[in-house]
Amino acid sequence: MLEKTDFINVKALSELEREQLCEEIRRKIIETVAACGGHLSSNLGAVELTVGMFAVFDFPRDKVIWDVGHQCYAYKLLSGRYGRFPTLRKKGGLSGFPKRAESEYDCYDTGHAGNSVSAAAGLAKARDLRGKSHRVIAVIGDGSFNNGLIYEALNGLSVLGVKILIILNDNDMSISPTVGKTHELLVANAASEQAKKENVALIERYGVQYLGVVNGNDLKEVTAALEEADKMLQEGSVLLHVKTKKGMGYDFCEENPVETHGVSPNGAAHEREYSQIFGEKMLELAAEDKRVVAVTAAMTDALGLRPFFEKYPERAFDVGICEENAAVLCAAMASGGVKPYYAIYSTFLQRAFDELIHDVCAQDLPVTFCIDRGGLSGADGETHQGIFDLSYLSLIPNIAIAVPKDGEELKDMLDFSLGYGHPLAIRYPRSARASFGRKRKVALGTFEYLTEKTDNDLTVLAAGERAVSLAFELRESTGVAFDVVNARFVKPLDEELLKNIRSPRIITIEDNVRRGGLGDQIDRFYLNGGKKIYNFAYFDRFIPQGGVAELQEEYGWDRAEIAACIRNEK
Amino acid sequence: MLEKTDFINVKALSELEREQLCEEIRRKIIETVAACGGHLSSNLGAVELTVGMFAVFDFPRDKVIWDVGHQCYAYKLLSGRYGRFPTLRKKGGLSGFPKRAESEYDCYDTGHAGNSVSAAAGLAKARDLRGKSHRVIAVIGDGSFNNGLIYEALNGLSVLGVKILIILNDNDMSISPTVGKTHELLVANAASEQAKKENVALIERYGVQYLGVVNGNDLKEVTAALEEADKMLQEGSVLLHVKTKKGMGYDFCEENPVETHGVSPNGAAHEREYSQIFGEKMLELAAEDKRVVAVTAAMTDALGLRPFFEKYPERAFDVGICEENAAVLCAAMASGGVKPYYAIYSTFLQRAFDELIHDVCAQDLPVTFCIDRGGLSGADGETHQGIFDLSYLSLIPNIAIAVPKDGEELKDMLDFSLGYGHPLAIRYPRSARASFGRKRKVALGTFEYLTEKTDNDLTVLAAGERAVSLAFELRESTGVAFDVVNARFVKPLDEELLKNIRSPRIITIEDNVRRGGLGDQIDRFYLNGGKKIYNFAYFDRFIPQGGVAELQEEYGWDRAEIAACIRNEK
Repeated sequence: MLEKTDFINVKALSELEREQLCEEIRRKIIETVAACGGHLSSNLGAVELTVGMFAVFDFPRDKVIWDVGHQCYAYKLLSGRYGRFPTLRKKGGLSGFPKRAESEYDCYDTGHAGNSVSAAAGLAKARDLRGKSHRVIAVIGDGSFNNGLIYEALNGLSVLGVKILIILNDNDMSISPTVGKTHELLVANAASEQAKKENVALIERYGVQYLGVVNGNDLKEVTAALEEADKMLQEGSVLLHVKTKKGMGYDFCEENPVETHGVSPNGAAHEREYSQIFGEKMLELAAEDKRVVAVTAAMTDALGLRPFFEKYPERAFDVGICEENAAVLCAAMASGGVKPYYAIYSTFLQRAFDELIHDVCAQDLPVTFCIDRGGLSGADGETHQGIFDLSYLSLIPNIAIAVPKDGEELKDMLDFSLGYGHPLAIRYPRSARASFGRKRKVALGTFEYLTEKTDNDLTVLAAGERAVSLAFELRESTGVAFDVVNARFVKPLDEELLKNIRSPRIITIEDNVRRGGLGDQIDRFYLNGGKKIYNFAYFDRFIPQGGVAELQEEYGWDRAEIAACIRNEK
Repeated sequence: MLEKTDFINVKALSELEREQLCEEIRRKIIETVAACGGHLSSNLGAVELTVGMFAVFDFPRDKVIWDVGHQCYAYKLLSGRYGRFPTLRKKGGLSGFPKRAESEYDCYDTGHAGNSVSAAAGLAKARDLRGKSHRVIAVIGDGSFNNGLIYEALNGLSVLGVKILIILNDNDMSISPTVGKTHELLVANAASEQAKKENVALIERYGVQYLGVVNGNDLKEVTAALEEADKMLQEGSVLLHVKTKKGMGYDFCEENPVETHGVSPNGAAHEREYSQIFGEKMLELAAEDKRVVAVTAAMTDALGLRPFFEKYPERAFDVGICEENAAVLCAAMASGGVKPYYAIYSTFLQRAFDELIHDVCAQDLPVTFCIDRGGLSGADGETHQGIFDLSYLSLIPNIAIAVPKDGEELKDMLDFSLGYGHPLAIRYPRSARASFGRKRKVALGTFEYLTEKTDNDLTVLAAGERAVSLAFELRESTGVAFDVVNARFVKPLDEELLKNIRSPRIITIEDNVRRGGLGDQIDRFYLNGGKKIYNFAYFDRFIPQGGVAELQEEYGWDRAEIAACIRNEK
């Protein structure tokens, strides 16, 4: 059906045809994710719900906000993007998340968790102020429902006086199984009469009507519930509680929902990852020092901490998609004499920026932030690039920022962290490809020469594996024998080493935006010092999806330009 | 009683003596705040509760976290700080907030809202891991209880498996009256049996026992409730719901709780404030364009928006202490064709950093952030200085950052904002003292000469009223006739004007930390260009309380040093 036309009038289909459509969508998702990678099990779970929504609502007149946005594949397939679907997550192709620039069916870009109810409320207020009458719907997973922003949004609904439909797509999972009491009570036990009564009471406190629980993978049932919810919407906001099965319809996914939350394309080389090295080393730290605890916000597996959680359950805390709570917990545990390691993706740490400043750094507490997916992350696009962290961390007093050149150095830095009594960020990308072959004790604020110090025309300061690798690649390709320095602390700088560089020209390379990162700090250090300095980092732009290498080339690491600079041709 | 000794053994006092002690504390608070300024009504409301806590608990062995920390004066008076109390909020004196560096009775520094339950949970976990057994208590106002972080923390209690006591100090107010459904239901109607039952159910969902409501200004009643809560704590975490009266015992405060939330010292000159200018101008914008809406997070009065809220209630939204929700609402309203103005203190905007990036700027939406208390704010200390904003805003793509030189220019910038279709931050301090006498249409990314352009030896680029004022003050005192440029956009820079500066030396001055602010951007602009550049901004330090002028002098704006630089002596 889908293959014949990009747009399907779901309303006009018979029940049987709708069921067939679901199967077709499911096949298309499995086939495309096998080729392109992407979120698999969450999208498979949401197929019937999405078809039901098209049967009941009028898109694009009606507006839907997909929380996180990783459940939107069926929506994309039904809203004119079937033909382009094989370009999913590729440079210039369809995004794996909603994107306003991509289709009028996408009204709000998402990527981070928990903002959908706020966004729906805002859109509904704009609608009311402009005298319009379309529906506004937020679809949110139970994992996101733990996020504090949801409660701020629910509380705010009465202030705004808007009517929205919230669809709680409850599959007992975020990336990891959902944790905590909100989940246990609102969600997991929702089948019991008592729990249902409590759900009603909880949601009605916010002036929102509760409807559910319905089977979100039963097309007929979920469609009827959406119709019922739509009627209730006349009276006021509604929360429709839908149960779905993550990975529904694909046995392998149903059985492995964590592993198939996000999957790589078939045939992709299985590379060693920093997360794995980090996870292994954390076991050593935990054995060495009983005060070591690990904290994550619903990302235990992706961050490499599963072995730690299994071996040291009493010292391992997954607090759900609650990045802020995790940061404050770490600060408080540190103030109580414990040594917390907070592992998180770079882009999600943005959510705990105030707590970084106010709770951790203002009190100068020994929390170690283990920041994964630092730098460009690639296929997930704008909302997932980890390119701001060196900047937003550098501006905060009291925190040191370490950037390992390879997996071995990550271990050395973790060894260092154990004895370091202040806030520390260690930041690394996903893939651990390089090995620069030196293992040494890392001291605070020290760089190291990776080539013999010659102080000839040019010294390159590179922060992190990708930057160091690029330096060596260009040393090879240009044949210019410049000095390469591993600028492994973006803060504090190795002032002694910097003072002693006699090269008249300096190049900095970092896997971060230009503003506020390593380059700015080196410029500041040499200010009025007479050296020529060239900074290579990413432009002041949000960087869309693509392969990491192609994005680097396009958004700031232009190899030809850097080579010209190395040869002193620019 | 208090005057005789710094430490009082409250446990040893008779009921009558405890009542007298309350009166004495209340007098001392009123007297001290009259002299030093500070939070008045919240502290008056918490006197009996605090005395009751000393009667029941064992400080400093037991740990208490004061949410925000603006209710801690009685606690300070009872924990060895009576003698130093007259130094409150002065440079080198007692902080108006808990400070670990000040007393062993203070276990966790606070200042921003909503982190207390997380912090208590973290401290309790550290306690358990270290095999200790003291109590951990969070005291939180009902205003803070709207903040999303609280729900993340409640949800996380079961993950951590800790026992804590949460005292909800409910006075129906944050700085402004508390808003929203959480408040209405959990708090305001708590006297009814039905509401109480619902409170119990709500709190018990999180595995927390509910006790209340008790009169927190009745010493005997609140002490008995604390004893009861303490017994329940054996079984698991407890929320004790206490009603207090903000401003209790001081008629003027009881009748004016908003006005007396934070008060200035007696005799302080009543200066014109940017908030007032902003509020007046917002009325004009609203009249001019129906799409204009105003959003605040529980700060309507302090931000000057009371007249707007009164005149345009349908376009004015106070969403409570929910900075993140407010930011997403603005993004979504903007995406729906409305023009939101989000007024907020600089330091509190940190809480919405991720939403600034992810919701507003990544979607390039026309939200205007009106950032008050930008730069040093003075007496509230580390947690309230607005010195990071120019840096954390500059690193975000798509946002423009405007810094008016005086109140008239704030108005011009607001005029500019109306036609500007992208994210915009306008940032200003509290007091509007200066007037540089030019009113012009402001265009994006334009600086202006405030003196005749001579291009002699030195040009000073100053961002914001305080910096521009300092430039003129030094021009006068040094007698050096340098050019003064109003660097009124920190982003984008006025590249045309900068290119045409022929002075060989440049000085930048900004009311912000050095890292990532205007200075870095000017350095970057002139990189390798042969100019001598000197940047004056604040050091990479958390800046404690004090007068704005004395803090400036000490932490980066050393007038003698700048003067020497102006005279080219350094």
